Amino acid sequence: MELDLAQPVGALTAQLVDVPSVSREEKPLADLVEGALRAVPHLAVDRDGDAVVARTRLGRAERVVLAGHLDTVPIADNLPSRLDEDGLLWGCGTTDMKAGVAVQLKLAAELAAPNRDVTYVFYDAEEIAAEFNGLRRLAEHHPDWLAGDFAVLLEPTANRVDGGCQGTLRVRVQTTGRRAHSARSWLGENAIHKAAPILTRLAEYTPRRVEIDGLVYPEGLNAVLIEGGHAGNVIPDSCAVTVNYRFSPDQSEDEALERVRGIFEGFEVVLTDSAPGALPGLSHPAAAAFVAAVGTPPAAKEAWTDVARFAALGVPAVNYGPGDPTLAHTREENVAVAAVEQSEATLRRWLTA
Amino acid sequence: MELDLAQPVGALTAQLVDVPSVSREEKPLADLVEGALRAVPHLAVDRDGDAVVARTRLGRAERVVLAGHLDTVPIADNLPSRLDEDGLLWGCGTTDMKAGVAVQLKLAAELAAPNRDVTYVFYDAEEIAAEFNGLRRLAEHHPDWLAGDFAVLLEPTANRVDGGCQGTLRVRVQTTGRRAHSARSWLGENAIHKAAPILTRLAEYTPRRVEIDGLVYPEGLNAVLIEGGHAGNVIPDSCAVTVNYRFSPDQSEDEALERVRGIFEGFEVVLTDSAPGALPGLSHPAAAAFVAAVGTPPAAKEAWTDVARFAALGVPAVNYGPGDPTLAHTREENVAVAAVEQSEATLRRWLTA
Repeated sequence: MELDLAQPVGALTAQLVDVPSVSREEKPLADLVEGALRAVPHLAVDRDGDAVVARTRLGRAERVVLAGHLDTVPIADNLPSRLDEDGLLWGCGTTDMKAGVAVQLKLAAELAAPNRDVTYVFYDAEEIAAEFNGLRRLAEHHPDWLAGDFAVLLEPTANRVDGGCQGTLRVRVQTTGRRAHSARSWLGENAIHKAAPILTRLAEYTPRRVEIDGLVYPEGLNAVLIEGGHAGNVIPDSCAVTVNYRFSPDQSEDEALERVRGIFEGFEVVLTDSAPGALPGLSHPAAAAFVAAVGTPPAAKEAWTDVARFAALGVPAVNYGPGDPTLAHTREENVAVAAVEQSEATLRRWLTA
Repeated sequence: MELDLAQPVGALTAQLVDVPSVSREEKPLADLVEGALRAVPHLAVDRDGDAVVARTRLGRAERVVLAGHLDTVPIADNLPSRLDEDGLLWGCGTTDMKAGVAVQLKLAAELAAPNRDVTYVFYDAEEIAAEFNGLRRLAEHHPDWLAGDFAVLLEPTANRVDGGCQGTLRVRVQTTGRRAHSARSWLGENAIHKAAPILTRLAEYTPRRVEIDGLVYPEGLNAVLIEGGHAGNVIPDSCAVTVNYRFSPDQSEDEALERVRGIFEGFEVVLTDSAPGALPGLSHPAAAAFVAAVGTPPAAKEAWTDVARFAALGVPAVNYGPGDPTLAHTREENVAVAAVEQSEATLRRWLTA
């Protein structure tokens, strides 16, 4: 079987959906994508594992990146795909994100002379633990393949531009005490009681709301876990609150950590994990042109997404793609073919106008 | 083999120690105790499981109870017993509490006409979960066997009178919230943050110190466990603090629970377990005479002990016995033979003067 890049984008989406590609089982689909792109004369094609990168080499002043992942969450008894009478295509991966991949493939095949050089990135293992993420691997092995002035990730956003993303870090805020039998509690020192100010400061904290490029990033500082105590008759000698800070991309990871340390001054604060945010970068000419082409107001992206990987490489990035994001990972996943066509038309206008 | 109740109390302690009687394996020792007591003409002897009860029936105005458990914690490579040149008897159960049992047996055999009727109680399974406790079983099956005006438990107290005991109860103080992704925390309601006032009230609480019969019972109100949260990126919808209240015996279990509910007003409070305290009862004539015979000031007992089981039957009770309580359950368990002799002499004086 080969991918037919000449068929309409809705039919191409269905063909992609019907090649199962659960995370770490992307090889058959990656092989098809690579084969189809190598047949396109105006593209230079590279491959790393099950990631495929295709580039125009026209020497344009700007280069933009269109990226999407090939993998899906596990199939929920919803394959093969099915197109209903209302023009909805149902099945695993329809909205997240084979519709976006179909748009990438159509543009890659058909835009022989875009107004900007374009890099098309197709990668593996986005839906599972970060250590397997194909975009992360590409950034390590071949950062030059990802170079560009601006990137669009075609994750489902209902064709809205979602700019940048929050950063996230987690710390353990800890107290220590001294164990004792609870019948003689005055011999001990209660570490859970000592955690009272940690919770009070969290409860009283007013999160920042930061505006960047016209987008508002609301922060969040939350206890996500609390653990303390040993047995029903023992004064506990340790208590730990795991706090998750979702921070606006105006702060680096280090700045965000300093802010958290300040909030919990007087307590032991141990960083457990951290990922940077991403600025929306909408002031870049290529980004501004893109927002104009979409024609609807952009919004701030709340969750951490792979746009932060581009940001870390110095490439401002946004999410923009067909499909309802709230249907992702559900058994009822579907995408309207009209929305896929709209997305294709918008990107084509941006890259040819 | 038979128990030789005519030998000095130190030697009798050694003989008892050399019959292993780890909890639930007390039968050989209970058989020996029952046999020895049945040979004493002035005693009426009863048995329930591996508990043995022997009583004088002299029609005295007062009846007192001397009680002790036959079982030990698991043997720690410290049997058979060994008497060193300093007069210390080493081995599992020396201090906790075969020395006390030896004192009981000597008095039972030799006091044919004490000034008060005496009930000698030997019971099983004190060192393990309460459901197996032999004194508890006796109180259920034969409360009349335990009747009396005053009771002495011969647990090790270094020959000090430890009066009454604290009650203890545990509650779960709970909060609920609403789950949400932590990147969009404003959609949720953080149950851990809502627990802040629980910890603050605990940290700020000043425990009562209650004086009864000249003894001071210091209370304690402590978080012993705290649990909340699901995952590093989820706003938690539940948090529970387990609180242990050790309360003075001036309060019933119901009164103590009401006090706790008052402290945590506004929160859901669920009782998980509860045991009553025991008043020292030192104002009773038999108890006052006992304290006078011991000759040193009594103290309040802090931990919950089996004296509370007597208190629940309406029998005031104290702990008093030879041996260092801090050596109980250790590999280095030992008792000074002189202390056992002193305990025997004190009780003999009380029961014959």
